[in-house]
Amino acid sequence: MDYIETARQVKADSYTLAGLSTDRRNEALAAIAEALTANKEEIFAANRRDLENGSDLPGPILGRLRFDEHKLSDVLAGISGLIELDDPIGKTLLERELDDDLILTQVTCPIGVIGIIFESRPDALVQVSALCIKSGNAVILKGGSEAKETNRALFDVIRAAGIEAGLPENFAAIIEDRAGINEIIKCRDEIDLLIPRGSNQFVQYIMDNSDIPVMGHAGGICHIYVDKAADIRKAIPIIIDAKTQYVSACNAAETLILHEDVADEVLAELPGASDIDIEIIPAKSDDDFCEYLDYKMTVMTVSDIDDAIAHINKYGSHHTDAIITEDPGAAEIFLDEVDSAGVYWNVSTRFADGFRYGFGAEVGISTGKLPPRGPIGLDGLVTYKYKIRGNGQIVGDYASGKSTFKFKDIIPGGE
Amino acid sequence: MDYIETARQVKADSYTLAGLSTDRRNEALAAIAEALTANKEEIFAANRRDLENGSDLPGPILGRLRFDEHKLSDVLAGISGLIELDDPIGKTLLERELDDDLILTQVTCPIGVIGIIFESRPDALVQVSALCIKSGNAVILKGGSEAKETNRALFDVIRAAGIEAGLPENFAAIIEDRAGINEIIKCRDEIDLLIPRGSNQFVQYIMDNSDIPVMGHAGGICHIYVDKAADIRKAIPIIIDAKTQYVSACNAAETLILHEDVADEVLAELPGASDIDIEIIPAKSDDDFCEYLDYKMTVMTVSDIDDAIAHINKYGSHHTDAIITEDPGAAEIFLDEVDSAGVYWNVSTRFADGFRYGFGAEVGISTGKLPPRGPIGLDGLVTYKYKIRGNGQIVGDYASGKSTFKFKDIIPGGE
Repeated sequence: MDYIETARQVKADSYTLAGLSTDRRNEALAAIAEALTANKEEIFAANRRDLENGSDLPGPILGRLRFDEHKLSDVLAGISGLIELDDPIGKTLLERELDDDLILTQVTCPIGVIGIIFESRPDALVQVSALCIKSGNAVILKGGSEAKETNRALFDVIRAAGIEAGLPENFAAIIEDRAGINEIIKCRDEIDLLIPRGSNQFVQYIMDNSDIPVMGHAGGICHIYVDKAADIRKAIPIIIDAKTQYVSACNAAETLILHEDVADEVLAELPGASDIDIEIIPAKSDDDFCEYLDYKMTVMTVSDIDDAIAHINKYGSHHTDAIITEDPGAAEIFLDEVDSAGVYWNVSTRFADGFRYGFGAEVGISTGKLPPRGPIGLDGLVTYKYKIRGNGQIVGDYASGKSTFKFKDIIPGGE
Repeated sequence: MDYIETARQVKADSYTLAGLSTDRRNEALAAIAEALTANKEEIFAANRRDLENGSDLPGPILGRLRFDEHKLSDVLAGISGLIELDDPIGKTLLERELDDDLILTQVTCPIGVIGIIFESRPDALVQVSALCIKSGNAVILKGGSEAKETNRALFDVIRAAGIEAGLPENFAAIIEDRAGINEIIKCRDEIDLLIPRGSNQFVQYIMDNSDIPVMGHAGGICHIYVDKAADIRKAIPIIIDAKTQYVSACNAAETLILHEDVADEVLAELPGASDIDIEIIPAKSDDDFCEYLDYKMTVMTVSDIDDAIAHINKYGSHHTDAIITEDPGAAEIFLDEVDSAGVYWNVSTRFADGFRYGFGAEVGISTGKLPPRGPIGLDGLVTYKYKIRGNGQIVGDYASGKSTFKFKDIIPGGE
């Protein structure tokens, strides 16, 4: 396959997609939901082939790979929910009368073409395709190879139903071989944003090898700092939840920073407070400040909160970090000075998630500095443009003083 | 100089700067304004040395290089204006009660460390330093070498006054040799955003050679499309203004796209409508779709608006493009489907500018897709983080069904 040519076609059609009305995009989503139901037996059959081919895979991976009535019903509910949501595009963020008959608006619009690389979960293909249609973005999809047959069946149904409902022919494309990833990450004129999901090494590889903006996170070294003014009865369950509730999550805590005044008490109470043994690893070198994704935790002590903040900013991954304290002043310093997408006071780092923030579906979590940052849902898939509607005005008249700007806000906003 | 070590020190102090109150940052700005006035004779003397060293430079460049009472008074007025502006950081974009005593807020915050590379205009050093202080960002400055003496004098005054007023020691740093640029563009752990200004080749070089996000534009190939339903009496002055009002601006029009129905009329009226001769170059090859920054314009005809839009999206620089038409339907299609930071109807492309949008000072214009896009002022120098303030909540309780989310919006917002 010539994926560069594919990317060009998707890019060319992305402008048409960007100009479609809210109704047209919602109708396409409804048509896709209907077509998925109508073609479910073929999709399930394709999935059975993937499950047979992958019969040696570990149980949890097979569970994610499975696409059955239950998963179908989940993705259909997801699409229904998306249709009900407000259109994220066409929102006026700012409207300003620069002068008579000279109106500036700042309006949300699609980003363009989004390349999404995701794990072997066929439901993710439906979810991210639907999010892109709702937000007016064209999409290039690359799913995990274990789900190849299911992905192809789902993609064929989504593509046909979308085109039938009026989307441009190349509103979506699929990449079916791993080598294609290296082609598309070079397509910086065709792809506006890459969202890689998967292992840290894989995400880092994409970040290091593409000039396209990347939304995602290559690591989740999250911290819990137990302050000298902590309530230890709150600290212990939070540490256990943040470490063990889902040990392989990016928002699981990896490093425990203890103020020296409370370190002994925490370390005495932690074992025995949970059914699961957490292996406590005293920090000896920089290598200990790593992401375990296991029932292990690095522990270090500090003599004040500033040292804790400095450590987190230096060694963390700017993902999510929590302070446990009853001192509101200390908490606010932590929330202001820790430079992470999520900064928490007296709660588990595991709350960092689009669903738990009330965003609905999530396409990923970004640890980049610029927006969108943190969990990315529908509103993270849009950008904006400035429109000016005038009546023949020229800058020369303002430069000469013949005309002057009024700057009267109709809808006040930022830039 | 070891600029990597400098960048590390600036990074370390950026967290302290981010935590300072609005008043503290405004007081620092006031102190800097006062110090600039108190030390103006030394600054003017430094500027005279730069002017002497650069006596062979062309007049317009010497004009930008000059820093005198008049320029000082301009930058002081700029600082006063900034002090009056609302604080761009600490704004709550979203406040949501996830559950009782579990409050999610999305709050604007500084980006961190910004590296700004700017032309030989000493007033730009003061302006960008002040914008960074107001927005809580630490800054690494590299100015044009022709202004070296003036930049050093201004920087020394700003740095001393800022520290005296309570800013952390390394809130700002200056790079004084060109080789330093190649060091700092590799500092992706220390610098969060680069804003290069200067020639297209220079900006493209930075974009190609740094993994740090870059805000800017490497070209300004702006278009005017004269639709079949255009009022030619509006079209002619707009074309002349867009081409000639400031011919070396990035938002000057370079390509004129004429609908075939009006092409003859426009081409007949254009010569003679202006005192300045515009050389009309019929498009023959892709090389003609270039940025002249001169009194030259490529002209092509199309048979419909879709061809005009497709051409602009393919050959343009996503900067600013205008349609001239009396047909509102055609105008709205153009505004929706042209994928540029600025899309205009019946006005000159020269309006693309932070001051003309009413943003006050501008640090640059971004042609990137993701926000901030278009002219970047103070609000473009901030990002956001999510804060959760809780009371010991753990995710396990929500996963088990013991607790359920409420999702009650106190301040509704996007992601």
